[in-house]
Amino acid sequence: MGISLGSNRYGKAENRVVRIYRDTPRHTIRDLNVSTALRGDFARAHTDGDQSDVLPTDTQKNVAFALAKEVGVPSPEEYAVALARHLVGAVPRATGAQVRVEEQAWDRIPVEGVDGGHDHGFVRRGTETRTVVVTVSGRDADQRTWVVSGLEDLTVLKSTGSEFRGFLTDGYTTLEETTDRVLATSLTARWRWEDPGGVAFDEAYDAVRATLLSTFATTYSRALQETLYAMGRAALETDPRLAEIRFSAPNKHHFLYDLARFGIDNDGEVFHAADRPYGLIEASAVRDEASDPGEAWTDVRSFL
Amino acid sequence: MGISLGSNRYGKAENRVVRIYRDTPRHTIRDLNVSTALRGDFARAHTDGDQSDVLPTDTQKNVAFALAKEVGVPSPEEYAVALARHLVGAVPRATGAQVRVEEQAWDRIPVEGVDGGHDHGFVRRGTETRTVVVTVSGRDADQRTWVVSGLEDLTVLKSTGSEFRGFLTDGYTTLEETTDRVLATSLTARWRWEDPGGVAFDEAYDAVRATLLSTFATTYSRALQETLYAMGRAALETDPRLAEIRFSAPNKHHFLYDLARFGIDNDGEVFHAADRPYGLIEASAVRDEASDPGEAWTDVRSFL
Amino acid sequence: MGISLGSNRYGKAENRVVRIYRDTPRHTIRDLNVSTALRGDFARAHTDGDQSDVLPTDTQKNVAFALAKEVGVPSPEEYAVALARHLVGAVPRATGAQVRVEEQAWDRIPVEGVDGGHDHGFVRRGTETRTVVVTVSGRDADQRTWVVSGLEDLTVLKSTGSEFRGFLTDGYTTLEETTDRVLATSLTARWRWEDPGGVAFDEAYDAVRATLLSTFATTYSRALQETLYAMGRAALETDPRLAEIRFSAPNKHHFLYDLARFGIDNDGEVFHAADRPYGLIEASAVRDEASDPGEAWTDVRSFL
Amino acid sequence: MGISLGSNRYGKAENRVVRIYRDTPRHTIRDLNVSTALRGDFARAHTDGDQSDVLPTDTQKNVAFALAKEVGVPSPEEYAVALARHLVGAVPRATGAQVRVEEQAWDRIPVEGVDGGHDHGFVRRGTETRTVVVTVSGRDADQRTWVVSGLEDLTVLKSTGSEFRGFLTDGYTTLEETTDRVLATSLTARWRWEDPGGVAFDEAYDAVRATLLSTFATTYSRALQETLYAMGRAALETDPRLAEIRFSAPNKHHFLYDLARFGIDNDGEVFHAADRPYGLIEASAVRDEASDPGEAWTDVRSFL
Repeated sequence: MGISLGSNRYGKAENRVVRIYRDTPRHTIRDLNVSTALRGDFARAHTDGDQSDVLPTDTQKNVAFALAKEVGVPSPEEYAVALARHLVGAVPRATGAQVRVEEQAWDRIPVEGVDGGHDHGFVRRGTETRTVVVTVSGRDADQRTWVVSGLEDLTVLKSTGSEFRGFLTDGYTTLEETTDRVLATSLTARWRWEDPGGVAFDEAYDAVRATLLSTFATTYSRALQETLYAMGRAALETDPRLAEIRFSAPNKHHFLYDLARFGIDNDGEVFHAADRPYGLIEASAVRDEASDPGEAWTDVRSFL
Repeated sequence: MGISLGSNRYGKAENRVVRIYRDTPRHTIRDLNVSTALRGDFARAHTDGDQSDVLPTDTQKNVAFALAKEVGVPSPEEYAVALARHLVGAVPRATGAQVRVEEQAWDRIPVEGVDGGHDHGFVRRGTETRTVVVTVSGRDADQRTWVVSGLEDLTVLKSTGSEFRGFLTDGYTTLEETTDRVLATSLTARWRWEDPGGVAFDEAYDAVRATLLSTFATTYSRALQETLYAMGRAALETDPRLAEIRFSAPNKHHFLYDLARFGIDNDGEVFHAADRPYGLIEASAVRDEASDPGEAWTDVRSFL
Repeated sequence: MGISLGSNRYGKAENRVVRIYRDTPRHTIRDLNVSTALRGDFARAHTDGDQSDVLPTDTQKNVAFALAKEVGVPSPEEYAVALARHLVGAVPRATGAQVRVEEQAWDRIPVEGVDGGHDHGFVRRGTETRTVVVTVSGRDADQRTWVVSGLEDLTVLKSTGSEFRGFLTDGYTTLEETTDRVLATSLTARWRWEDPGGVAFDEAYDAVRATLLSTFATTYSRALQETLYAMGRAALETDPRLAEIRFSAPNKHHFLYDLARFGIDNDGEVFHAADRPYGLIEASAVRDEASDPGEAWTDVRSFL
Repeated sequence: MGISLGSNRYGKAENRVVRIYRDTPRHTIRDLNVSTALRGDFARAHTDGDQSDVLPTDTQKNVAFALAKEVGVPSPEEYAVALARHLVGAVPRATGAQVRVEEQAWDRIPVEGVDGGHDHGFVRRGTETRTVVVTVSGRDADQRTWVVSGLEDLTVLKSTGSEFRGFLTDGYTTLEETTDRVLATSLTARWRWEDPGGVAFDEAYDAVRATLLSTFATTYSRALQETLYAMGRAALETDPRLAEIRFSAPNKHHFLYDLARFGIDNDGEVFHAADRPYGLIEASAVRDEASDPGEAWTDVRSFL
């Protein structure tokens, strides 16, 4: 009875790379959390303890910081592509690499008399985390590159314009129908680029984000599923270079607090925001002529 | 050898009270995390298991939600004062109450054609948490009320305009002096009102926050201590009703990454943002004629 | 240009189900965090807001609690299988279900004069979280069931018996070789059962866990990769019913603190335990005659 | 109108110091999280940016690691006392220091044929965090030292033997009385030593912990208040050197799930474990002849 090494990969996770551009007095900042992972034929490291094919994760960390200067961070996507390709190139036994980046945005601090905020004083924006997953497979002419952009923890809420009724019931159903409820979620979205070449990723991010937000706000919701799919369609319609978009959205329940027990009306005004459990809705929208996703979604955390 | 009951208090922590104002189509939202604590003579509950003096924490929860409707949340401070006074009034054995509130801000979602954003679609702001601690002591004519407003986790960064040198050294000192470093902190601040009566707390909050931010940005820093004290002075000068302000500020270290090892210049451009350990600086500014703080700071978490 | 609904699923996440067996004075407790997800043809909910095919997540929650009594929790695996099958049966449009369970263990509190600890007083064990992912696909005679058991956050450390040397180097390599280091990880492991029928899951869990621990302790380590693979082989050899086992293991770096600067020897005695970044090693061991994993690993969080 | 510097302190927080004793093949490990804070006359650093009185937090970090070797960690208490006294001695302007330590326990991994577990393979225990707060005030002959030992997050549960009834009610009371409920808490306890000199802290810790646990298990509970006070009394009776003990204990509610709606009995068998809100009970027991606590509790996080 034999036992063999199965799939494996390794890298350095959560390098906290902060890149400041200070070529002019008006600085800019890119605040990244960078994780790398290499795939390939590293069997000897597992079976014989032979590290001669293994570029240490410590070296991968050094490269992650070095490329922040050598390549820079024009966008987290471009930085991640460069880093992934560099790592495959540096490791003969590697067959592919994945680089994940999470970016925190900083705003300029408003100060009197300075249009658009302070030159080198910043406050963390705090709303959502911007994400990138770049997967590179193969080498040289055969190399393929997939770019998935996205965001995490964009927390949104509608205080009306949401219902939930007409659902399937059985002997375990106790939920009452509602024609007016609070709908809230902490959105995770990821969108795959059909061809990442030439995309202005920062502008594209802002546009997709704005579309997701305004669609959430302006679409009457008969279920979180319907809202997500409307958001996905709107995003794909906004930018024809998007092949698909996927969502993971906890339904953050806001339960109307029963104040009638105390003789108090509560017509949609006082809610208990519950932590757990929560509904978890995952959905996606795909362009009909989209290419096969290949390895774009391989090992992407908690996704469809 | 005797053993006695020492100090004690009890309450319901982290009630997630969400209050929506929907009297017009343009809704507003107050998103609170409310904790209550009662002090008093509750010895029998501890020594004899006799609960007859004890208003259950479950009832305190009901009151926290009920007052969100009956009193409303014109500001978290006014809501907290009303709740604290109600609880003391409801419990004959209580000698005092403390109510803590944390508030998350929501912004209106920007949509085309609607000035100032959507009527009932919101996105969580995410920057900092606004805090309130109200302490009430005594009853009726003798009742005293202290209000401490504040904020937590306002994360700010200066990419230049900060030095650290001329410090005390000894045989364990290895830190090198620097004349240009990144200064970053996740600010906690709390300010005590000399007389909370008649304060427009929401406007006052915005003003203190703006002063803290702009002072951080525009003050050259020779140490985080100096920056904090400058921020404190500026806040007290902005609003004469403030008696004092206290800060707790982790020095979130950004270490220049050593790229010279790879033949790469790094003149303040690429940093490693470290998690732990961090410097922790606590400081306060007090108006000279400020009243005695009394119980304002009793049991306030992790503060001077 | 068309856009279509892509893959999707929905359920209730993180139901905190606590089941107490109290048929005798010696109680037992199962403390679960249960998440459900349904797949199927729910297109109308997304495209038309029509919920008639959708069993609410609230009902799934009710079922999760009800089955804790009706089926009970002989093991988290058996409970999860019953819950997943029930949900597919309850929803005509469902084509499959996944149930994830995390279990916290409780130990009896030691008391004088009671062998094996108190009858109904417990202390949370705290070491690791036990996990189960059950995936059910299809209905009736065609229904397939996969069971993946596992653990998370089993934190282990070797204070010697670990080296790292002979690795690939390049111009970005600064790591020095070491013949004696601290090796620590917070282990996540998941093992797939070839045929879950008839397995005594609680006993099997204890055996796999004990094998993983003792192999970690007694195997000289030339890399975390080698250690993981040795642990995987040992687990598969211990229980022939296991088809494969997969690991995700952060290399929790312990850096020797440089005390020579102060004239103090530090021969492997004082370390700084770093948070981020960390190496992240993922590896797996597979029995040669193992069946195809089918959907066993679909949507399993952050795994190979 | 003048503004002055108020109270202030500074230090290095969360130094992750791991000390391994390897003088024999049977290693032992002390895994600490160490925070320092200095008080004194540091006004010039705040008002003039003059650091000449300030020993950098970076130096404090170096000392924290160096003393782990020079003094060692016979117990976290003894290490903390040495560190606090060293820091006051090293900084002429310091009037006092506080050192906080959190310790994680590690158990030896059980292996066949080795009594008491492996020599250098460890698994993190995970139950609770052991804590120490040492406060030193003054210098030389006038120096005072207070030691407060404790634990955090010791999570305990009783599946019966707990009631809650006979409580005060008013118009907002909806809670029903219960004569049999689940009682669970995640205990924080801190005990002050009358005279820390000569205490064998590790043994004393184990004894206090065991007393707290067994008292929780064996005492019938008419309220969490009564249980805490009984635990406190028992601890003080166990060790006459304890002056007082203080508790902070969230009442982790376990709500009986209403299964009657589905025709299922639920006689104390299936519970929903709620996250928020939770009752928060704080209480203390004091020996009648205890000395004044002085500065022992100053700045101790979230305590009475």
